[in-house]
Amino acid sequence: MRVLYLVPAPMSKGPMGAKEMLRRQALLNSWAFPGTEITVADTEDGPFSIESAYEEMLSIPGALKGIQRAEADGYDAVIIGCFGDPGLEAAREIVSIPVIGPGEASLLLAAGLGHRFSVVTILDNVVASQELQAYKAGVKDKLASVVPTNIPVLELMADPAASLGRVVELGQHAITNHRADTLVLGCMTMSFLDVADEVARTLRVPVINAAKAALKAAEAQVAMGLSHSKKAFPFPPKQEPVSPIGSA
Amino acid sequence: MRVLYLVPAPMSKGPMGAKEMLRRQALLNSWAFPGTEITVADTEDGPFSIESAYEEMLSIPGALKGIQRAEADGYDAVIIGCFGDPGLEAAREIVSIPVIGPGEASLLLAAGLGHRFSVVTILDNVVASQELQAYKAGVKDKLASVVPTNIPVLELMADPAASLGRVVELGQHAITNHRADTLVLGCMTMSFLDVADEVARTLRVPVINAAKAALKAAEAQVAMGLSHSKKAFPFPPKQEPVSPIGSA
Amino acid sequence: MRVLYLVPAPMSKGPMGAKEMLRRQALLNSWAFPGTEITVADTEDGPFSIESAYEEMLSIPGALKGIQRAEADGYDAVIIGCFGDPGLEAAREIVSIPVIGPGEASLLLAAGLGHRFSVVTILDNVVASQELQAYKAGVKDKLASVVPTNIPVLELMADPAASLGRVVELGQHAITNHRADTLVLGCMTMSFLDVADEVARTLRVPVINAAKAALKAAEAQVAMGLSHSKKAFPFPPKQEPVSPIGSA
Amino acid sequence: MRVLYLVPAPMSKGPMGAKEMLRRQALLNSWAFPGTEITVADTEDGPFSIESAYEEMLSIPGALKGIQRAEADGYDAVIIGCFGDPGLEAAREIVSIPVIGPGEASLLLAAGLGHRFSVVTILDNVVASQELQAYKAGVKDKLASVVPTNIPVLELMADPAASLGRVVELGQHAITNHRADTLVLGCMTMSFLDVADEVARTLRVPVINAAKAALKAAEAQVAMGLSHSKKAFPFPPKQEPVSPIGSA
Amino acid sequence: MRVLYLVPAPMSKGPMGAKEMLRRQALLNSWAFPGTEITVADTEDGPFSIESAYEEMLSIPGALKGIQRAEADGYDAVIIGCFGDPGLEAAREIVSIPVIGPGEASLLLAAGLGHRFSVVTILDNVVASQELQAYKAGVKDKLASVVPTNIPVLELMADPAASLGRVVELGQHAITNHRADTLVLGCMTMSFLDVADEVARTLRVPVINAAKAALKAAEAQVAMGLSHSKKAFPFPPKQEPVSPIGSA
Amino acid sequence: MRVLYLVPAPMSKGPMGAKEMLRRQALLNSWAFPGTEITVADTEDGPFSIESAYEEMLSIPGALKGIQRAEADGYDAVIIGCFGDPGLEAAREIVSIPVIGPGEASLLLAAGLGHRFSVVTILDNVVASQELQAYKAGVKDKLASVVPTNIPVLELMADPAASLGRVVELGQHAITNHRADTLVLGCMTMSFLDVADEVARTLRVPVINAAKAALKAAEAQVAMGLSHSKKAFPFPPKQEPVSPIGSA
Repeated sequence: MRVLYLVPAPMSKGPMGAKEMLRRQALLNSWAFPGTEITVADTEDGPFSIESAYEEMLSIPGALKGIQRAEADGYDAVIIGCFGDPGLEAAREIVSIPVIGPGEASLLLAAGLGHRFSVVTILDNVVASQELQAYKAGVKDKLASVVPTNIPVLELMADPAASLGRVVELGQHAITNHRADTLVLGCMTMSFLDVADEVARTLRVPVINAAKAALKAAEAQVAMGLSHSKKAFPFPPKQEPVSPIGSA
Repeated sequence: MRVLYLVPAPMSKGPMGAKEMLRRQALLNSWAFPGTEITVADTEDGPFSIESAYEEMLSIPGALKGIQRAEADGYDAVIIGCFGDPGLEAAREIVSIPVIGPGEASLLLAAGLGHRFSVVTILDNVVASQELQAYKAGVKDKLASVVPTNIPVLELMADPAASLGRVVELGQHAITNHRADTLVLGCMTMSFLDVADEVARTLRVPVINAAKAALKAAEAQVAMGLSHSKKAFPFPPKQEPVSPIGSA
Repeated sequence: MRVLYLVPAPMSKGPMGAKEMLRRQALLNSWAFPGTEITVADTEDGPFSIESAYEEMLSIPGALKGIQRAEADGYDAVIIGCFGDPGLEAAREIVSIPVIGPGEASLLLAAGLGHRFSVVTILDNVVASQELQAYKAGVKDKLASVVPTNIPVLELMADPAASLGRVVELGQHAITNHRADTLVLGCMTMSFLDVADEVARTLRVPVINAAKAALKAAEAQVAMGLSHSKKAFPFPPKQEPVSPIGSA
Repeated sequence: MRVLYLVPAPMSKGPMGAKEMLRRQALLNSWAFPGTEITVADTEDGPFSIESAYEEMLSIPGALKGIQRAEADGYDAVIIGCFGDPGLEAAREIVSIPVIGPGEASLLLAAGLGHRFSVVTILDNVVASQELQAYKAGVKDKLASVVPTNIPVLELMADPAASLGRVVELGQHAITNHRADTLVLGCMTMSFLDVADEVARTLRVPVINAAKAALKAAEAQVAMGLSHSKKAFPFPPKQEPVSPIGSA
Repeated sequence: MRVLYLVPAPMSKGPMGAKEMLRRQALLNSWAFPGTEITVADTEDGPFSIESAYEEMLSIPGALKGIQRAEADGYDAVIIGCFGDPGLEAAREIVSIPVIGPGEASLLLAAGLGHRFSVVTILDNVVASQELQAYKAGVKDKLASVVPTNIPVLELMADPAASLGRVVELGQHAITNHRADTLVLGCMTMSFLDVADEVARTLRVPVINAAKAALKAAEAQVAMGLSHSKKAFPFPPKQEPVSPIGSA
Repeated sequence: MRVLYLVPAPMSKGPMGAKEMLRRQALLNSWAFPGTEITVADTEDGPFSIESAYEEMLSIPGALKGIQRAEADGYDAVIIGCFGDPGLEAAREIVSIPVIGPGEASLLLAAGLGHRFSVVTILDNVVASQELQAYKAGVKDKLASVVPTNIPVLELMADPAASLGRVVELGQHAITNHRADTLVLGCMTMSFLDVADEVARTLRVPVINAAKAALKAAEAQVAMGLSHSKKAFPFPPKQEPVSPIGSA
């Protein structure tokens, strides 16, 4: 199967660049089941990182174009490459192939591993929106807390060891004070640091890499012949199912 | 006080046109307290109506520009002219003046009038998103149902009498079958048909005109010196509070 | 419009006296929209302040008489002058004009300003009843906490500066420890100290004056031609809608 | 032990009269464990029956006097003789002996017999307040429905056979349509018709007589040396624990 | 009435032995209403104590046999002698007489005494399952916390004074930090130490002895002619209602 | 990876026999990703099918033995072959490898495909327990309904076409009346009829085959190096992590 991992940002033009996209593509392919091929792509414009609702809203129109094109190009599934799942409902309206949000996929996976999970995220100002994600995924009752590292996305990779230390510290805080028994890394950059296993060994609880979780969700849906419900996410009434966005 | 009612669509270029904008502006001013002046404006581009998450996402970037400009132009408050409150969180992040969503304002008003309210809306495919609005407003427990007329926005005004009849029929259905004791008209076009009072007289329950509800919420916040919490909706980290969008 | 602010206590005979009633009347009128005239009245008997369910129950029969008389006297709306909204449901049963509870009005207003609000209240023993108010208003999910100053109502005005300091301290506690982003002053005496704006400036979150919130809710309902749902609050079966209490 | 069953209405002066009080006293004593003695008393004034929040509020001050006197007279527990539990919180504030609300006692008993229970009640306009009772008791999640017979309290006894038929019919409706597996008779007059067992035999589900449920709750609390938590229901701050109401 | 208190463990063969069973039988009979006779029995095999889901599952088949035999032997009700209520649903399926779980009975009793209760339990690893019990009983909303003493069941009786001290300490913690106003002793061994009254005197909140609570629930159901709903707990489809387990 | 699919029943000795086990094993292997090898095994004793809590409890001890043996035998994961997930918590306590419950896996998968899902199940008397499963999985808010076919497990395979027809009929009922947008086949025998895709084509909503869902969950957890949290499901205190059940 062919899966598109779409970064909803012009990453190739930004500080992380095309090199980081290739690194992520290699990692994703190394995590895949035999027979899965993942391509990483980005959008033409929009903010370089998403750390607010405002940036999320600006990133969505470009991402929607990319998702519609992916279906036209014959991809079997698309992963929206941001933990906040920007534009997930809208994307599911305009295509029939599975559209996977790493946030939703991680939260649902976490719900099956224990009683209470916490999300280790980037900044204070995404806490409320990640709580809303848990509600939308249907698993708010199992959310112990969202704990922010307060390290901006673009700085996370500058000092990976420091980032790891901060993640461990906050994870321990969530375990001790919020009774979390499972952790989710709530940021794709954090996930592609590929430190989940190390955090898990240190804290002795399962730690979910959101990129892997999204990949496994995509592979499962495609393998099972499933996709999101078109009754839940119907085609927009003024849009013919077959028409591409550009021609409307 | 000066309030901007921003239609998040290029209404002046669409089938309803600038004439309808002026009609709405006159209605809003007729509903206002003495001393309030409302201006109706629209956006430069985007879909002509919002009947799906997809269209909502496409409408938001233009709306955000208009809201940021409104603050720069000295307006005391902005109303987003769509019941779905598109971009509400993002807008509150980028400005300090009150940003009112007619959906949120109507649902909170309805919660104070009875035990259970229903929303009479346009199409099936906004039911789930309006349920989510009730959750986000914090009043999901009082939501009896969302009942769709299945009359598209742009046809609502073509036959106002038929639309009124359909609203009455669905309202009665919600009262009888879902135990609603209060109704909300969940669409601005429906609200500007100005039929809420007639529906209320027929069904003998309060019926909320979402445009009026938004106006009264804006007037109340400005008069009380209140606005949304910047702790809840902080400025985006990468954006200086004073910089306009266009210059970023 | 004419609005009655009814203190559900014999305030004119008590320690605060008629002078305080006139002071409150002046404040309310200074906060009103042009065209609104507020009268402050009290009841003939009952406890001087309400700091328990017991005192609340004793205050209600007198308040109900006053509310019924207000409708007969042609008032357009009544505000029950106690944050606990004593007798709100019963009052709405016996009259058709809007009956506003400052607690309910403040909680619904707070729900529209952020994600989580706290109520700064008087004594420990009203915490549970104010949590119940949040449930009855429909916004319990957004209630971060109720934090008591443990300063009795009748002492609040003795040392306003100390009271202000205590409110600021507790508000900060709720912001830091309960993740509140919005505050409500949960006591009318506290509200009429008129310190909400100063607390807001200090803590940098919106702070709601419950007296103002009630006034704005009354003005909005009257201006919109709305009142509580008589389907939710029907006339008592054994009482004719037109009969005053005194003649029953 | 000595238990006072206090009718919060001047029943001896009303249409049912002292004779009905004696009949109820005899029934209660026939249901008691050996060693329990129940006295039935009424209040001096207030409405003859409680079918609205308004009447409930008018009945409470008299009931509170009676409950305070009961403690002074050495009773071991008091049952408030109305399914709506009028004044329950206030009563628990002013005394230390157990105060039992038949509504609360029945709902908690029902929660232990199955997954979902329905309350068969009198009139439409108590449905919302009985739903609130279920919330206050803590068992709202198990409440399948409140179904009203729409037979006023004072007519229930006029035609017991018809009343029984109506209860059976509504109980069946709740079982079939609301998936109730347990029923509660939500009115004391209904309970003292003593038809619960016959309804249970007909519908083959447990049916709770609220008067019996209250009695058994009172007996259990007294036998266990328990009463309501004074931390939850503290003495009113302005009232000395030992002072009777009349002397305040 | 005759009530069987069935310990779901081979207690007579274990460290506590038959002597402890007789001590418990004497205590139970001392707590009973006149006319109630309680017999304590145990099972033939299974773990000696239940401190995990695993041990709970191993204890249930033996307990179910004992419960079915109790009905055949003419008992009026059975109490499952473990706070975790092992096998409660299954037991209710196979018999018609009341089957009382001390956990469920205690939680429902606690819900009627205050606003928020905490359970003082044994080990960390039953916290999640006791939270689930509160959900199943229908009273999760009133559960303030489950606080574990981390003293294993079989050590509790070795040093009763130390156990009492630990219970008081944790109870105070729950009152101060979790706002509990009522406590439940969440372990039968703890309950049969008969320290609830002393803890209550020290902490000045009601403290529930789960064994007493179960006994009073059994007595109430039998006296009222009630039992669990067979609509909620129907006979297993492949089992004739009259056939004992052994003969299947 | 090697996955054990453990039927918690002595299927090889029952009416379906070893042949059906081999058929299921072949199906499972046909659904697997390359590199996954599934073995189907059964237990030595217990009921032939699980259609009640009673039968579930009897099946669990045997299943736990099998699961412990699977870990000792080097399996990478175990699937409990019953939609009711019998013994899931207990199994997770005694082993470290992933233990997958098809019910939990299906419900979490369904939560990611739409807004509301229904479970098409076998008999009336598992409805309540499947609702409890949705609560335990954390996704109760998305459960639209559980609809029973009332065809016993052992008859489902006798007339597959009739079974299919009944599933379609009930699925349509859930879509139309309960607003389900996604369906789950809540029984393994139903899942191994392999009709999910045909039902999906007919009803035009996603339909989840619980056996496939469990397999994909097992493959994902093993591939990601994850398993259930041992903080949530700790080893039983009296059991050394390495000791097999048989030797205790």
